[in-house]
Amino acid sequence: MSHLTRALQALSGSAYQYERFTGAHTHTPHLADLRQKYQRKLFDSIDDVLERCELRDGMTVSFHHAFREGDKVINYVMDKLAEKGLRGLTLASSSLMTCNAPLIEHIKAGVVTKIYTSGMRGELAEAISHGLMAEPVEIHSHGGRVHLIEKGEISIDIAFLAVSCCDEYGNASGSGGASRCGSLGYAMVDARYARKVVLLTESIEPFPLMPASLTQDQVDYIVRIDSVGDPAKISVGAARVTSNPRELMIARSAADVIEHSGYFRDGFSLQTGSGAASTACTRFLESRMRKQNIVASFALGGITGTLVDLHEKGLIKTLLDTQSFDGVAGASLAKNPHHVEISTSVYANPSAKAACCDRVDIVILSALEIDTDFNVNVLTGSDGVMRGASGGHCDVAAAANLTIVVAPLIRSRIPTVVRQVTTRVTPGESVDVLVTDHGIAVNPARQEVKARLMAAGLPVVDIDTLYQRALLISGEPKPIAFTSRIVGVVRYRDGSVIDVVRQVKA
Amino acid sequence: MSHLTRALQALSGSAYQYERFTGAHTHTPHLADLRQKYQRKLFDSIDDVLERCELRDGMTVSFHHAFREGDKVINYVMDKLAEKGLRGLTLASSSLMTCNAPLIEHIKAGVVTKIYTSGMRGELAEAISHGLMAEPVEIHSHGGRVHLIEKGEISIDIAFLAVSCCDEYGNASGSGGASRCGSLGYAMVDARYARKVVLLTESIEPFPLMPASLTQDQVDYIVRIDSVGDPAKISVGAARVTSNPRELMIARSAADVIEHSGYFRDGFSLQTGSGAASTACTRFLESRMRKQNIVASFALGGITGTLVDLHEKGLIKTLLDTQSFDGVAGASLAKNPHHVEISTSVYANPSAKAACCDRVDIVILSALEIDTDFNVNVLTGSDGVMRGASGGHCDVAAAANLTIVVAPLIRSRIPTVVRQVTTRVTPGESVDVLVTDHGIAVNPARQEVKARLMAAGLPVVDIDTLYQRALLISGEPKPIAFTSRIVGVVRYRDGSVIDVVRQVKA
Repeated sequence: MSHLTRALQALSGSAYQYERFTGAHTHTPHLADLRQKYQRKLFDSIDDVLERCELRDGMTVSFHHAFREGDKVINYVMDKLAEKGLRGLTLASSSLMTCNAPLIEHIKAGVVTKIYTSGMRGELAEAISHGLMAEPVEIHSHGGRVHLIEKGEISIDIAFLAVSCCDEYGNASGSGGASRCGSLGYAMVDARYARKVVLLTESIEPFPLMPASLTQDQVDYIVRIDSVGDPAKISVGAARVTSNPRELMIARSAADVIEHSGYFRDGFSLQTGSGAASTACTRFLESRMRKQNIVASFALGGITGTLVDLHEKGLIKTLLDTQSFDGVAGASLAKNPHHVEISTSVYANPSAKAACCDRVDIVILSALEIDTDFNVNVLTGSDGVMRGASGGHCDVAAAANLTIVVAPLIRSRIPTVVRQVTTRVTPGESVDVLVTDHGIAVNPARQEVKARLMAAGLPVVDIDTLYQRALLISGEPKPIAFTSRIVGVVRYRDGSVIDVVRQVKA
Repeated sequence: MSHLTRALQALSGSAYQYERFTGAHTHTPHLADLRQKYQRKLFDSIDDVLERCELRDGMTVSFHHAFREGDKVINYVMDKLAEKGLRGLTLASSSLMTCNAPLIEHIKAGVVTKIYTSGMRGELAEAISHGLMAEPVEIHSHGGRVHLIEKGEISIDIAFLAVSCCDEYGNASGSGGASRCGSLGYAMVDARYARKVVLLTESIEPFPLMPASLTQDQVDYIVRIDSVGDPAKISVGAARVTSNPRELMIARSAADVIEHSGYFRDGFSLQTGSGAASTACTRFLESRMRKQNIVASFALGGITGTLVDLHEKGLIKTLLDTQSFDGVAGASLAKNPHHVEISTSVYANPSAKAACCDRVDIVILSALEIDTDFNVNVLTGSDGVMRGASGGHCDVAAAANLTIVVAPLIRSRIPTVVRQVTTRVTPGESVDVLVTDHGIAVNPARQEVKARLMAAGLPVVDIDTLYQRALLISGEPKPIAFTSRIVGVVRYRDGSVIDVVRQVKA
């Protein structure tokens, strides 16, 4: 077409660099080949995928932890990367669990030299707390992780994302297939920002698997493996359901606080964290809601079967689910149209154009320690060893209108209420009420809340009184012996450093 | 906390620039103020929003055209920008219609100096075809628009997006509220890539309006206006339903082609463009599908009431909707769980990691002209004036397994089948079958399809025969008189230039 050649010459003085059309498939060669067109992302083994991933030492790989203790992908892929001889990797998993103990070997071997995570537990946490890594672990909140990704501090080269099912193009869901984890709220962020996205799945379903949680335009490669995770182990540990009478008592007391807080009104919104007492509190809200003819507008965050029950009874209009804490939640996500999956960015990213946690009226959170300034530690145990996670704690505490922390006064003969927390994860300014089995303390900044609870006859005491009572019962705990070496940096949701974790003395 | 100061000093030698925590709301000051927390995005007037948008001459503003001829936002906002005294703007609307004639004044005044669009019609198209603009208009396909955005050629400063409803945080939908446009497939791309996103809505609904088509993390400002669009005018023009006997005859013939093409089998997928005959063809598929016990896996693209009807009858499993062509489609999107909204990137972006159009078996497209090499013109009329749109034409034609073009042999005494199209939008290599009211022509590259259609007794003729017949009936049309000036650059989906449009002689 010589007229086009002339036209391009005429246009060559313009601001645009025009390329001349040379064929329908010049830039889409996969369309000229049926195998490529349909199945170019599909591979039989992770090795085939890794060959195509431009692996290099020092890269950052990411994972989600929606399968929690049942995850089978993190260790599997890290083993493979170690096999390939990679060194100096940054591991950016949305969190790490007891099941991730095999990572210890990869750290020892220099395969992994830096970790970003919301928390850690078990042997891995023990080892790191005892100085396993040269570089401190960066502990972030769920919202804070997205912030660090958007700011570029966490720059993901490859995201390896476990999904229970997807189609040949990579439209993926966590609420279909055999091994449902439910919401892919964490993975949605990685799929959005990672340079390469690899799905590991158990089941390739017919196209189009839509609506999808992760969409085809985000996915580079797909590999089918035998098992991506054991959903039965999602609710092990932090997300367990309790029948402990003391936890139930605290949960009931927290429900009393909610009822009389001034925020318990039609259309209120709530979040209940992953702690057993906080989860259990939901159960005690139902009768109070019915009695006062109150329907909640939404529940946010980690979604449990208890919340699903209230939703299905019409007592909570919408569930905004960033992590499904049990099989009931996963099943509900698949069938209830107002049980909606949201990314951790939409959930709690402080630098997003809006975060759902900002709309929460009441949040119930747990604590390993809380001090007399209401600062909360959800990361280190009484021995100074990491055994928890930042999670969405500081995110929602900062944003909610009423932040309630529930905790027993004493755990295994160690006080929970202390003069100063071992590790500060959530600042006291974000915590309004502490509910213990020995009484309720209100942050002095919230006198109006305190007055309402006292007017309702609830056992409100000063937090110093709780502290003194704990001392009286259990005695002054022996100070933890730390070395000066920093093994963990606790990042606040905005990326700033709110505390550090030091190596415990052996 | 002096221990934190010491810790930060110890960390200062590391690779990271740590900031010290200084307060829960240091980086989220809106959380300290209830008005800011809940309503900081909401404004009473577009003027209030524009004040905050850092307007400047030469910027790029974008819009979607889901309301088609009923749109009330494009002209409204452009009037406002003109009022503010802006000059040299690039207007990047996913398409422009007859209703956009008022833009002529803004072009004359130098407010708009560059346009990216899928097409144009009416007075605006007349004026531009006659040389209104100094810079040629860039005509792109729907998929190609996303490609140009991702490559940075279209770099959107502010997207002004009409939505029928949204909540205070900007979770938005086109399938709620009074003025439904249905899918926000175009807008999803702008919301993802624009530096600032402004929603114009008729209705602010309670938070959370989820699931949402556009999500809160993409939205900067929200302004309520009286009317964003008239949904009754969506199906005016290109998207109309026909009762024209000749169009129905062609549509029936296209259904015959589909039935015998070799691609009509259980699980097939289809797209029917916006042309009347192509839309009508869908209606004739039902009995054929029932007779052969065939269910389609999905229908893609612009969704019509006819496709919804087949979906609700169980004959099409999933509708993948990038634009709802009528009120029935909009209503279906709101209620049918397998009627799924997709972005134009997921729909047809050639540089996306996967595009749905690549999975289409059969597409039926229209043509203003088609030449004996099967090249198609959907942009310029027989007078050389622009009166159409590139749309998804070249996207799906390139990707589908069988591309059928439907057109009457003669329109208003002007041949549709020509020796060489006035403007090439879709290359002949992408077109497999032409169905006219005077017979069916098959691209010589598709001998196997030709053989099947002939075996079925369909009236297959050579395209040259159709061309000669058209000449015989209507005579050789007078050549269009063009000047040498280029008024439009036709970009193929991959960004390359496939043709240009020259100024018509007055």
